[in-house]
Amino acid sequence: MDVLKADPLHPLQAGFGFGGYIPRALDAAAVQDLPALSPDESWMRLALLESMEGIGRSSPNPPVGAVLVKEGRLLSKGATLAYGDRHAERVALDAVTDRSQLVGATCYVTLEPCAGIGKQPPCVEALLASGISRIVVGARDPHPKAAGQGLKALTQAGVAVETDVLGGECRAWLFPFLAWQQLQRPVVIGKWAQTLDGHLADDHGRSQWISGNKARAYTHWLRQKYDAILVGVGTALADAPSLTVREAAPPLHRQPHKIIFDPKGRLCNGQSAVFHNLRQGLQKSGPVLFHAVETPHWKPEPWMEAFKDVLEPVLMPPQCSWLEFLRLLDQQHRTRFGRELQSIMVEGGAQILTLLVRDELLDALQVFIRAGILGGSRHRIGRLDPRDGASAPPTNPMLDLNARHDFQLVATQQLGDDVVLECAHRRFTFWN
Amino acid sequence: MDVLKADPLHPLQAGFGFGGYIPRALDAAAVQDLPALSPDESWMRLALLESMEGIGRSSPNPPVGAVLVKEGRLLSKGATLAYGDRHAERVALDAVTDRSQLVGATCYVTLEPCAGIGKQPPCVEALLASGISRIVVGARDPHPKAAGQGLKALTQAGVAVETDVLGGECRAWLFPFLAWQQLQRPVVIGKWAQTLDGHLADDHGRSQWISGNKARAYTHWLRQKYDAILVGVGTALADAPSLTVREAAPPLHRQPHKIIFDPKGRLCNGQSAVFHNLRQGLQKSGPVLFHAVETPHWKPEPWMEAFKDVLEPVLMPPQCSWLEFLRLLDQQHRTRFGRELQSIMVEGGAQILTLLVRDELLDALQVFIRAGILGGSRHRIGRLDPRDGASAPPTNPMLDLNARHDFQLVATQQLGDDVVLECAHRRFTFWN
Repeated sequence: MDVLKADPLHPLQAGFGFGGYIPRALDAAAVQDLPALSPDESWMRLALLESMEGIGRSSPNPPVGAVLVKEGRLLSKGATLAYGDRHAERVALDAVTDRSQLVGATCYVTLEPCAGIGKQPPCVEALLASGISRIVVGARDPHPKAAGQGLKALTQAGVAVETDVLGGECRAWLFPFLAWQQLQRPVVIGKWAQTLDGHLADDHGRSQWISGNKARAYTHWLRQKYDAILVGVGTALADAPSLTVREAAPPLHRQPHKIIFDPKGRLCNGQSAVFHNLRQGLQKSGPVLFHAVETPHWKPEPWMEAFKDVLEPVLMPPQCSWLEFLRLLDQQHRTRFGRELQSIMVEGGAQILTLLVRDELLDALQVFIRAGILGGSRHRIGRLDPRDGASAPPTNPMLDLNARHDFQLVATQQLGDDVVLECAHRRFTFWN
Repeated sequence: MDVLKADPLHPLQAGFGFGGYIPRALDAAAVQDLPALSPDESWMRLALLESMEGIGRSSPNPPVGAVLVKEGRLLSKGATLAYGDRHAERVALDAVTDRSQLVGATCYVTLEPCAGIGKQPPCVEALLASGISRIVVGARDPHPKAAGQGLKALTQAGVAVETDVLGGECRAWLFPFLAWQQLQRPVVIGKWAQTLDGHLADDHGRSQWISGNKARAYTHWLRQKYDAILVGVGTALADAPSLTVREAAPPLHRQPHKIIFDPKGRLCNGQSAVFHNLRQGLQKSGPVLFHAVETPHWKPEPWMEAFKDVLEPVLMPPQCSWLEFLRLLDQQHRTRFGRELQSIMVEGGAQILTLLVRDELLDALQVFIRAGILGGSRHRIGRLDPRDGASAPPTNPMLDLNARHDFQLVATQQLGDDVVLECAHRRFTFWN
């Protein structure tokens, strides 16, 4: 029997996942001790690692990496380091001062190069002009400006083209960009830490710490990667979190937007302490706090004046659906920042995460599991707690085994005494 | 920050765990594509892989592997292939026909060689007589017949000694043997498959299949590894399992003993169908079915006569504790088979596993987690279901976050859309 070879999604190289090469997120030196791969895969891995240096800053452009190699020797590296800036291929090309070196070189790039004009002239033109003789691509790009056109032009010009080298690894790292192409709305990733019995906190509401310091460091890395972090108002009130990036490996150069999902406007009642914590890392010209409230419940307090440079109320119509909310939020982000909001990581609590799973609204999961059992009856994934004021819990949704909400497991990684499961909803078509 | 280096248990090489090299358990060809290691580690890995060929058969002797190497060239391999048979070192030494080759060779062995007389003369003597100049050891052996004595003798004779090469990997594979030395009673491993929300079955009791075919194949591999498989009577009645080894990669050469934990004697009431399924793989001179019943409830039915060659009733005193039960079972195994029962894998159901976790009676866990959410209210780890006839569930044990039952994560491995967490109780002292 040979069950190992029946995978629809080819297993990723150990250590790779949504966060890129996960040990790198914890320790910048972790890349010095990588296992051997084929030469093409090794160069592609270097391109992927290079792209991690710019984590978060290119969004909503994809965080691409490229390396140029000639006769087994590295000529240059490049990454897409900021939104609207030069793409990785061009950064790598520009870094080679003696242009004659480029003739006959190979370009390794984590994503298929663009062929149309965006904020930058198309990379395919620059590659054609450079004289390289071979291009090796990680993930193909479903974006209309790429989608095979560039590769066709390169092939026609006599450049040897290879694709899908570490394709799964590149796609995992580029997941928000690829998923956005398919969905055309912000991509939503659920993130939580739980015990084996599914508890995100004990019955006293304490969740610090279900998971250990490596899991926390990786979470902070991911807060840089995704554009915004969302928590439900219950978690905001209970934990008064700051939701900032603090503990990952360098670079630490970006704070995410923060979103409080508060449809009934519970924070419109003098909870300035919550806002004070959340203010950390927010700036007038940078990340802001989106406070999502249904219109009838929006009653700004006088103290909110002090936060107005970083506070962005999102006023939802009554009975607003989650998808309507996402579009509203995206629209507001475009208006203020001139670009779409590509990805949101929902960090809790158990109630909102369970509702989002139940309604198939999470596009991906990053679940940190602690090898422990906690017991208790509250703050558990898959369980809807009684609403405020209700005396008995509502019937729990019970699914048939064949109807369970089942995700595709993209990657796993041990992080001390925790393991992270990185999973994608089965709606995505770009894995292979 | 450098959180990667703070591990008390050094992370294992990817793929290694309680089952040895886990991909090998699913596909015998998986060993052809291993990542690069240092030369010493590569030879030790070969010794460990060789020891996997004899899975289960050496018990309660440890399943050891050895390779002999000279000037970078493999001379021979050996494994402890049966209880009471030659140890791995001697098998490897005996396989070299030109004994002069051994002078100056290196012996890689997964466990410190024995220095005292057991069923076989001590390996240290054979190694000293052979002329080898260097020995590289995986795990040190806490057994009084080894415990540094052999290594001291080798050092004194001028043999270069190195230890702890792939030590963690060897210890994981040798876990039942090492844990038995410390506990002096059968080692109990809990094994289950669950969804993220902790369900082992849906509310209809269906558990086929929470996990996929790779997880199942690995479970069958583990059924060879451990001496006996235990299920509670509820699981026996609901699933009528056969508990046999069927789907792992070759070799498939051993069936485990089976144990039904049935203190109230529910199977003493004409449930011959359950016994018929369980009879598969049992033999008069080989594995048997232990039926554990408290004395007052032991009422053998006439149809049990047909099973008497493979049925071994374990009559427990009333209110028998779990540890008493283990000792009784071990005693009965010794009487019938002339050796101790070293390890038991408990496969369910949720009720017995939860009780064993609550009372700190599981020495290790192997938990297969499906990236899905099932909901419902029964068959969940960490939850005690109401007893038969009771109308309301008992209060669930709620632990403080700092008092949770917390295990040490030894290894993880992705298996298709499942991930297995392999964890040890923190009572073990031999990891480092």
